[in-house]
Amino acid sequence: MSDENISWFPVPDEDELPDNLRGLFMKARQRLGFVPNVFRVMSFRPERLSAWFAHYKQLHEPTENLSAAEREMIAVAVSMANGCLYCLVSHGAALREALGDPIQGDRITFDYQRAGLGEKMHAVLDYVVKLTISPRECSPLDIEHLQRLGLTPEEVWDVIEIAAMYNFTNRMAHATGMMPNPEYHSMAR
Amino acid sequence: MSDENISWFPVPDEDELPDNLRGLFMKARQRLGFVPNVFRVMSFRPERLSAWFAHYKQLHEPTENLSAAEREMIAVAVSMANGCLYCLVSHGAALREALGDPIQGDRITFDYQRAGLGEKMHAVLDYVVKLTISPRECSPLDIEHLQRLGLTPEEVWDVIEIAAMYNFTNRMAHATGMMPNPEYHSMAR
Amino acid sequence: MSDENISWFPVPDEDELPDNLRGLFMKARQRLGFVPNVFRVMSFRPERLSAWFAHYKQLHEPTENLSAAEREMIAVAVSMANGCLYCLVSHGAALREALGDPIQGDRITFDYQRAGLGEKMHAVLDYVVKLTISPRECSPLDIEHLQRLGLTPEEVWDVIEIAAMYNFTNRMAHATGMMPNPEYHSMAR
Amino acid sequence: MSDENISWFPVPDEDELPDNLRGLFMKARQRLGFVPNVFRVMSFRPERLSAWFAHYKQLHEPTENLSAAEREMIAVAVSMANGCLYCLVSHGAALREALGDPIQGDRITFDYQRAGLGEKMHAVLDYVVKLTISPRECSPLDIEHLQRLGLTPEEVWDVIEIAAMYNFTNRMAHATGMMPNPEYHSMAR
Amino acid sequence: MSDENISWFPVPDEDELPDNLRGLFMKARQRLGFVPNVFRVMSFRPERLSAWFAHYKQLHEPTENLSAAEREMIAVAVSMANGCLYCLVSHGAALREALGDPIQGDRITFDYQRAGLGEKMHAVLDYVVKLTISPRECSPLDIEHLQRLGLTPEEVWDVIEIAAMYNFTNRMAHATGMMPNPEYHSMAR
Amino acid sequence: MSDENISWFPVPDEDELPDNLRGLFMKARQRLGFVPNVFRVMSFRPERLSAWFAHYKQLHEPTENLSAAEREMIAVAVSMANGCLYCLVSHGAALREALGDPIQGDRITFDYQRAGLGEKMHAVLDYVVKLTISPRECSPLDIEHLQRLGLTPEEVWDVIEIAAMYNFTNRMAHATGMMPNPEYHSMAR
Repeated sequence: MSDENISWFPVPDEDELPDNLRGLFMKARQRLGFVPNVFRVMSFRPERLSAWFAHYKQLHEPTENLSAAEREMIAVAVSMANGCLYCLVSHGAALREALGDPIQGDRITFDYQRAGLGEKMHAVLDYVVKLTISPRECSPLDIEHLQRLGLTPEEVWDVIEIAAMYNFTNRMAHATGMMPNPEYHSMAR
Repeated sequence: MSDENISWFPVPDEDELPDNLRGLFMKARQRLGFVPNVFRVMSFRPERLSAWFAHYKQLHEPTENLSAAEREMIAVAVSMANGCLYCLVSHGAALREALGDPIQGDRITFDYQRAGLGEKMHAVLDYVVKLTISPRECSPLDIEHLQRLGLTPEEVWDVIEIAAMYNFTNRMAHATGMMPNPEYHSMAR
Repeated sequence: MSDENISWFPVPDEDELPDNLRGLFMKARQRLGFVPNVFRVMSFRPERLSAWFAHYKQLHEPTENLSAAEREMIAVAVSMANGCLYCLVSHGAALREALGDPIQGDRITFDYQRAGLGEKMHAVLDYVVKLTISPRECSPLDIEHLQRLGLTPEEVWDVIEIAAMYNFTNRMAHATGMMPNPEYHSMAR
Repeated sequence: MSDENISWFPVPDEDELPDNLRGLFMKARQRLGFVPNVFRVMSFRPERLSAWFAHYKQLHEPTENLSAAEREMIAVAVSMANGCLYCLVSHGAALREALGDPIQGDRITFDYQRAGLGEKMHAVLDYVVKLTISPRECSPLDIEHLQRLGLTPEEVWDVIEIAAMYNFTNRMAHATGMMPNPEYHSMAR
Repeated sequence: MSDENISWFPVPDEDELPDNLRGLFMKARQRLGFVPNVFRVMSFRPERLSAWFAHYKQLHEPTENLSAAEREMIAVAVSMANGCLYCLVSHGAALREALGDPIQGDRITFDYQRAGLGEKMHAVLDYVVKLTISPRECSPLDIEHLQRLGLTPEEVWDVIEIAAMYNFTNRMAHATGMMPNPEYHSMAR
Repeated sequence: MSDENISWFPVPDEDELPDNLRGLFMKARQRLGFVPNVFRVMSFRPERLSAWFAHYKQLHEPTENLSAAEREMIAVAVSMANGCLYCLVSHGAALREALGDPIQGDRITFDYQRAGLGEKMHAVLDYVVKLTISPRECSPLDIEHLQRLGLTPEEVWDVIEIAAMYNFTNRMAHATGMMPNPEYHSMAR
């Protein structure tokens, strides 16, 4: 595999990892053709990776009014606000794939305000950027507004929790020097 | 029970919650005398609360060069940078208790730079504030610097992961309107 | 006497100070049980302390629509915007005392936006934070708005002058390394 | 009298003012040829004006290593950082006059970093801008640095107190809509 | 000739310059009495100066609803937002001259929000400051708003292009250490 | 032709444009296979487009120590600092092509600090971001630093002028609603 430096921390060999993580890596390899570097970098602390991923994976489950693609939009909007290389490249790819539209995926990644989004997703992304950049300004009016645009209370909560989660993962990537897999760049183009 | 509004989302009755969460609430009540509102607010989505807490609780385990009190210092420094009422009140209390020194606890909470901290913790807190406010500026030199001050690579990782985690929890608190339990204000004074 | 370092400048002995300041210290000791460190630190320049205090003390006189507690709210909101340890601790204590409510006092100190304030004081504190952070944005509409909420023109002026004054005192505290008296932390709890 | 609107608050007639303020206005008229609008605007609250001015006037007294012109430089550097029309115009004029050099006065007012100042005043103005914009970053090293450049501790204190004072007056001007007297614009050119 | 250092780059002798630039300098000398330092500094790269000026000079041509003075207002508002010494001094002078009103010219230069401008120019200057400071926030509504206030689409474009141009020239001045000619300070007073 | 809305201003038909612009469009079509939307959008003001382009095209000519690819790096670093969709997409593509390395091109576009650049280009891009975000902080030391890393004075000037130019073009794109051509997204992948 690549000799490239993907982390500022040591990266364990895959075969030294606990069974559950080896299973996770195998599944990723089957689905994507490679193991996302986020898994390899975070395997430096295997129990943390397991616990984080058990939480994280719940957040991308689609619901009636918040599709998988729309959840990826939240990921890239937060990651652009934080300027996170790893997440912009990897979730930019995931968004292109989820939309089946590479141009719209890139546009939302770079500047969702100019991507011609409908009212619901424009409001959702405005809100997650506010929650990222000036979280004290959030108010109950934001929640009401998103509900009026068709989200259930559970889906508004998802918007919040996804945004908060990428504020976690962006910073893990920033501080560990996590580099995105080269494969992402040409995915879904 | 307080009638006070502790969340902008519905708060379920405790006896409707799954067993594992009822156990968590009971343990908290035994240890603290009350259930922290973060649990009650987040029980709106019970599986999320379970998954998040399984991850979160790993981060406050003390190690040789990063004590429980020092981990609370990271919590309050990040929470002050984000201006998070819930976490400043609750982890301010936890820090006072962990230090056994209410004055030093408050000082670190309000402005760690003026609390007379030693070189190690001053550097740790400078770093977590940078990771919170301008995460793109993090570099491998930061990691080397903290190791030179006595942290192991695993402990530097803990510094990062705790800081990233409070960037998650602060935003959950900000966006859900989570209010701190009144009990915290007089704890450990 | 505490041996603690309360200033980055020399702190004169109390008995070397001019009579009027010795009187001021004595009165403070009678009222509070101790001499606030702001007096001890600023006594490095005795005439300045006298002149400043003659001005400052006018600003906390209550009026019909702006009580002593409400004036302390302005002090803590400005001090939080500037991140001033000394003033957050000392005026946080004064606010708890003036309100007779330690929990509400702490909440306003950490985040007045989430303290359930009425419309008048919410607007007053929004305004003093704007005047602190982006003073060029102030306009005559702000003044009209506060008058519509029940303040007289003189009271609107007081709001402004108190806010401007804490922009003075916060910076005196920041630049002189002024440390709050330990007694404040447990006051009015 | 000008009919121009110089304040968003009522401006009292000069002859309704207390004797001491009428004396202050007369002296100003003798020295400058006009009454600075800061006096007229602040005379809405006469005791405040008296108290403030008794403090303020102490700060512009020259000392061996901090001349009257150098004190005006602090005034304009803080006022540019805050973007204060009244103080930039009035103290810009005062600085031109104190220097006897209108070009250098304007240059320092607009951008002291490009005015070819010596090391001492460059450091002083860097410090007062830091104290204005990010006061939490001040440290004892700043004080040592200014002393090494030739200031006494008392003069370093003056630097701080002048900077803090213009953070007060700038905000009084911003919030009251104080307009500079037309006469300042052509003074000392 | 002034011996003053007007650039951090070498400044060629005027007689070494290509004919077209010597003509440009001569015309400036006839019109103003001196050669603006922007020409002398930029003549380090003569073809660049020629090309830039051919573009730049188109932007200050007055039209029915956007006069020469109003175009200078855009120049100073952008330059104040960027804090550009050269452009504040030189276009401040040009604005005083274009208005025939030194006081109003200075006021607009320091703070257009307090200069009593009419609705159209207040909106124009708010917009160019937004375009300078937070360009992502621009929207089609801004364009509609300025058209409703009387500008043609071509004039709205001019507002944008002038603002963008001063974001170019301000940075050329900042990075080359361009100093304003002394003559500007007393012009049109 | 695409029916997509590429501008918030009217876009003229190509055959109504002056000869020189029709020639420019034809050359672009030959070289790239399409006309970049920046030309079509700016043709609303044909003389402006001609003048701007005559200036702009000089800046991308490679020199010994600043290649065509390195000049594109400046374009994307400034455009990321300003968050400009049009320029990130179009110059991101141009950089991928100039480097012949799509992965490195994307990495530099999203975060040049993590792209493993050599000392020279890292310093160049740090400098252009500073010139974009806080232009007042530029100093002669920056120029000396880049010369020590191997640039000639003319090439340092180019660094500055390219950075200043993208501060112009980014704002033209932001304010006109300029949309990138779909073709760019798949170019040089």
